[in-house]
Amino acid sequence: MSFEDRLSEVGLNLRSSIIRELLKFAASPEAISFGGGVPDPNTFPRHQLAEIAKEVVEQDYSYTLQYGTTEGDDLLAVQIIKLLNRIYGIADVQRDQLLFTTGSQQALDLMARIFLDKDSICFLEFPAYLGAVSAFRMSFPRFETVPLEDDGMDVGYLENRLRELDAKGEIKKVKFLYTVPNFHNPASVTMSLEKRKKLIEICDRYDILILEDDPYGMLRFSGERLPSLYKLAGPDRVVLLNSFSKVLTPGLRIGMMVGHSSIIRRATMAKQAMDLCCPTLTQRIAARYLERHDLVEQLKPGIELYRGKKDTMIRALNEHFSEIKGAKWVDPEGGLFVWVTLPQGFDTIGMFDVAKAKNVYYIPGEAFSIEKTPSTSMRLSFCLPPEERIVEGVRRLKDVIAQYGREKGLM
Amino acid sequence: MSFEDRLSEVGLNLRSSIIRELLKFAASPEAISFGGGVPDPNTFPRHQLAEIAKEVVEQDYSYTLQYGTTEGDDLLAVQIIKLLNRIYGIADVQRDQLLFTTGSQQALDLMARIFLDKDSICFLEFPAYLGAVSAFRMSFPRFETVPLEDDGMDVGYLENRLRELDAKGEIKKVKFLYTVPNFHNPASVTMSLEKRKKLIEICDRYDILILEDDPYGMLRFSGERLPSLYKLAGPDRVVLLNSFSKVLTPGLRIGMMVGHSSIIRRATMAKQAMDLCCPTLTQRIAARYLERHDLVEQLKPGIELYRGKKDTMIRALNEHFSEIKGAKWVDPEGGLFVWVTLPQGFDTIGMFDVAKAKNVYYIPGEAFSIEKTPSTSMRLSFCLPPEERIVEGVRRLKDVIAQYGREKGLM
Repeated sequence: MSFEDRLSEVGLNLRSSIIRELLKFAASPEAISFGGGVPDPNTFPRHQLAEIAKEVVEQDYSYTLQYGTTEGDDLLAVQIIKLLNRIYGIADVQRDQLLFTTGSQQALDLMARIFLDKDSICFLEFPAYLGAVSAFRMSFPRFETVPLEDDGMDVGYLENRLRELDAKGEIKKVKFLYTVPNFHNPASVTMSLEKRKKLIEICDRYDILILEDDPYGMLRFSGERLPSLYKLAGPDRVVLLNSFSKVLTPGLRIGMMVGHSSIIRRATMAKQAMDLCCPTLTQRIAARYLERHDLVEQLKPGIELYRGKKDTMIRALNEHFSEIKGAKWVDPEGGLFVWVTLPQGFDTIGMFDVAKAKNVYYIPGEAFSIEKTPSTSMRLSFCLPPEERIVEGVRRLKDVIAQYGREKGLM
Repeated sequence: MSFEDRLSEVGLNLRSSIIRELLKFAASPEAISFGGGVPDPNTFPRHQLAEIAKEVVEQDYSYTLQYGTTEGDDLLAVQIIKLLNRIYGIADVQRDQLLFTTGSQQALDLMARIFLDKDSICFLEFPAYLGAVSAFRMSFPRFETVPLEDDGMDVGYLENRLRELDAKGEIKKVKFLYTVPNFHNPASVTMSLEKRKKLIEICDRYDILILEDDPYGMLRFSGERLPSLYKLAGPDRVVLLNSFSKVLTPGLRIGMMVGHSSIIRRATMAKQAMDLCCPTLTQRIAARYLERHDLVEQLKPGIELYRGKKDTMIRALNEHFSEIKGAKWVDPEGGLFVWVTLPQGFDTIGMFDVAKAKNVYYIPGEAFSIEKTPSTSMRLSFCLPPEERIVEGVRRLKDVIAQYGREKGLM
């Protein structure tokens, strides 16, 4: 029996993750996968977390095994407010400006639910973070994409589009603009300070809410830390999302939403109807961890690990890809990804079968487009494979490109 | 600054939980609260869970601290499939018929998202479980309510309404019927076997999907265990929800959805866009617990505890409420609640201020209506207060009723 005929519009329009489909075979031991943005388990402080897990179940059981509030653990909130001050220099976040979510993904879903209707307009960067697209899409808004440049969003393009929408009387339909300013997923670029200021100026002028997603910000390898949009413009203009997934562990599924109390209040009401609350256990584990350990210090070996892997990947690309005329790649200042663009004519989804045959996996650029636009680009994650596998994987990729290029008469 | 002017229809129509508002002051040490349906922390197997928590973080860290699949932990699935067979006699549940969710609440939200549109019709029992109403409401369906009787849903009423809808050509709009057959929240009644069979017969005739929610089924004090609707009619007719919140611990936030693989597949796709996955840690803790401990056996002292509390509450009601002419209450065969109905003229929400002054808390029946209908009923949870506080609380409630009744000229 099929239930397709009674599905809702949302139910009918769900799409299975292309990334998931592509990476089905990436788990075999011979495969080298630059696919998922999955952190290296060696960076997880498992001994400390194991001790804390035992302790908070044993001692705080009437909290950690019980229902919690929708807003989340107050002890964790105390720690996060301190951490926000430390990493962003935001000194004045109040408890009612903070909501804990199941990863940032739930915060994206919450933003969609409380702001987006069918006739709403939602701005995204292009290429786009797919998780955001899939969350927003369930409200069927109109997507507007702003191209990414080497120093972040093309703010001139954005300004023109907003001017046009304003002229057409549609500016009120723009509910928010979503951006990943640091070490973008997938484009790996970082928005310059000048563009951050310009973006805020434009959004102030047209009264556009900014949704700033910063899961990778603490993973900086080089260059100067830039102020967050939230730090520059405050909660009247910006909602800030962050997550422990890339800097502590994804397994706890702790995301957070920082913003104006009136937005957080609505998001909390929606979350209450969606799942009542996040697990109290995982939140209290994180709270105790932050009470006892200096996350910024603890993260340093992890940053070194990722920097080493990133350097290895860039060296391998320099060595093997330099002869591919027209190919280019971003050397990211942080994060988990390198965005590689091949010469015109290449189609990285078409090339995927060749890659599969050679047992090397990447995410084709098409996966980061809203309407499945063919793409010459691909995202390479360097976070999970060991360094020697990164070198070998890039070598395999070069062979893939050479074979596909020959087959298609591109090289 | 307010963001109200740019909220979506969902955002604008969110309602803050009336229960939450009512119970704000119920936490003071002098208060006796029959409010929340919160399990007694003494029933949580904290020592075993503490050991397991430590072990699975230490040893399974590359799973428990990492991202998981949207479907959830396969080891937990193995255990749940066994448990479903043991408690329901359902022998043939496949892995692709099972999805783990953040409590049952998320499963309710998933059902709403994949099935309900604005013109959909959704059947509920009256009084209704509020969590279901708040989840379903975000899709703005038309609610149809079926009155509850002492032996469950008034299936004759349901049959008439379906006949009328069929005559009006609206039967295809009915997306599902939601029911809590065992120890209903809040009405505390249990659907008889005869009615279960009749309900299925009616739903077969009109091709209505049944959403069966059974969080309390394992907490039976007396009477014979009745077959679940899922057991009687299978996945072509029924989606079964269950949860560990009332039988192990709510803090893990583990709910589950069992149904036809085509429904589970859609729900999984929606969940992926909503939060990617539940925490791997909490799922693996539950899996190891079920591998090593017999949940059914372990639950026995908890059932005895609740039975004792329920008996105490019923004795206290018999003693103190018998003189209130026209008052009646259900002596439930299991679960966590007693549903008390006062004589005509009483309004349990109007009476709440008197109760607050006397430091005793309950949930007024109005909270379980869809359009805030005044009610003579109230829900009393006996699960949390110790027995002597239950006796004292019922005594206070009698004083509340007497005072309110005198003030309103009802007694």
